[in-house]
Amino acid sequence: MSAGDEVVVALDVGGTGMKCALVRPDGTTVHTERHATDAQRGPDAVVDTILEVADGLAGKARAAGRTPVACGIAVPGVVDETRGVAVWSANVGFRDVPLRELATTRLGLPAALGHDVRVGGLAEARLGAGRDAGHVLFVAIGTGIAAAHVVGGSAATGAHGAAGEIGHILVRPGGPRCGCGRDGCLEAVASASAIGRRFTELAGAPATAAEVADRAAAGEQLAGDVWRAAVEALADGLATGQALFDVATVVLGGGLAQAGPLLFDPLREALRERLTFHREPRLVAAALGDEAGCLGAALLALDTLAKESR
Amino acid sequence: MSAGDEVVVALDVGGTGMKCALVRPDGTTVHTERHATDAQRGPDAVVDTILEVADGLAGKARAAGRTPVACGIAVPGVVDETRGVAVWSANVGFRDVPLRELATTRLGLPAALGHDVRVGGLAEARLGAGRDAGHVLFVAIGTGIAAAHVVGGSAATGAHGAAGEIGHILVRPGGPRCGCGRDGCLEAVASASAIGRRFTELAGAPATAAEVADRAAAGEQLAGDVWRAAVEALADGLATGQALFDVATVVLGGGLAQAGPLLFDPLREALRERLTFHREPRLVAAALGDEAGCLGAALLALDTLAKESR
Repeated sequence: MSAGDEVVVALDVGGTGMKCALVRPDGTTVHTERHATDAQRGPDAVVDTILEVADGLAGKARAAGRTPVACGIAVPGVVDETRGVAVWSANVGFRDVPLRELATTRLGLPAALGHDVRVGGLAEARLGAGRDAGHVLFVAIGTGIAAAHVVGGSAATGAHGAAGEIGHILVRPGGPRCGCGRDGCLEAVASASAIGRRFTELAGAPATAAEVADRAAAGEQLAGDVWRAAVEALADGLATGQALFDVATVVLGGGLAQAGPLLFDPLREALRERLTFHREPRLVAAALGDEAGCLGAALLALDTLAKESR
Repeated sequence: MSAGDEVVVALDVGGTGMKCALVRPDGTTVHTERHATDAQRGPDAVVDTILEVADGLAGKARAAGRTPVACGIAVPGVVDETRGVAVWSANVGFRDVPLRELATTRLGLPAALGHDVRVGGLAEARLGAGRDAGHVLFVAIGTGIAAAHVVGGSAATGAHGAAGEIGHILVRPGGPRCGCGRDGCLEAVASASAIGRRFTELAGAPATAAEVADRAAAGEQLAGDVWRAAVEALADGLATGQALFDVATVVLGGGLAQAGPLLFDPLREALRERLTFHREPRLVAAALGDEAGCLGAALLALDTLAKESR
């Protein structure tokens, strides 16, 4: 059997849905499917679904004459990659779930467990918008804001699986209360939800961040003010990231990055204003869309295989 | 000749002085000396002195029956460890000086060039206060504030040799002007110089940070206010570092760490208040004092040797 027949079973588990794929070692996808997470059923039921879907994918691979060689699973929250444990997750309800071991046992395959944003960053750094840079910061901006610092193709995990929480750095002392309980976190000012919420508060009418961006572009002053305030907070956050990480490329993903030049043009300028002796990183949009999580989970599983065979 | 006779020629070059040593592979020091940097003579003269001192140290090692196996040099500023180039330094005047190559040529030994705070962090993480932790943030607080993020015994350098500039993250928007040109940087609020400067401004009489700490401890209200404001800014900076790096241990060095419990007790408490879902790092004082730079330069040189022999 040739290496071209080998595939990795990859799952990216989110609060509402699971993106699933069979991924070749070269990063191409040969099959995708989606399933509901139905997190309200509780973590045990979610784990059962994960294992069933993964096992089903391995079966489909074999039925198509392919060889599943590993399984990679990405989940949100605090994830201990080293022990393969989903330590904590607000939106899926995991508390110390040994998902790697459960997957290995169920599938009879080597498995890897990763953090959704960190594996997304891994994929963008190796296959996507950061693929020519050795030092990449991937920042996903949606309901929340989180980051992955990828150096030499490997994402920093931290001592407890909680590295990269750029959404929870202080940018506006005394600012809006964050979901984490602190005031003035970047996420509380500049996430897509925070932008929509702020505009809604001030305008008295609901709007999403995308609508705020469009209205700002159309010259509406209130929308412009809200958008600018978010861009400036983001620039403060990215400048802090650059001071600490000194990357070559910052890749922005998540829903807010869809705003394109409405986000990137003013953000690039605001970031430039804030950098003094530091080198300005390239600021680019993510290239892999919502496939990044699956691809990254597959890459992590392949890395684990490579390490084991050394 | 036994391995016990091998030594590394190590230099830690600062704006005013050079700390120099012969260091054994196990991290013990067999000889130390100090020289003036005399930076006002210009960078060429400083480079000449560095090479002469290094060559002299290698000669002394040989005269004592030891074998110099490598040379490690630490300098401040922006340092490209990969290319071995001192890119930029405000207080020594370096601009793209290929110090590693110059040292290798002059001494006929493999050489490594490192950043003073990053190699200091390397030494603290491997031989000093962080030696039992895989993930360490070393923060040096003196005239300025800088950090080294050390994982698995190796310090992150960044894409351009400028990683770890925790002194230049925004903590007080609209706050005091920093030496870098921006307002509200951590260094402008919480460095030893900033504390002394702030007290002097408010009290109309000069005082060092150490004196401010003592006066605060003695119950002087103004000193207490200034000290507390600095501690809170430091806690904000460390909380940001923890959100991004998620380390097990934070090691504080530099002049300000000499304040002992006057710094560590309120700082630990203020940091704890700021951490929500993040794990609290151990907060400890540096153990190696001003030897850390030399020891780290030696470790970096030994790492280079080990890589080359692979």
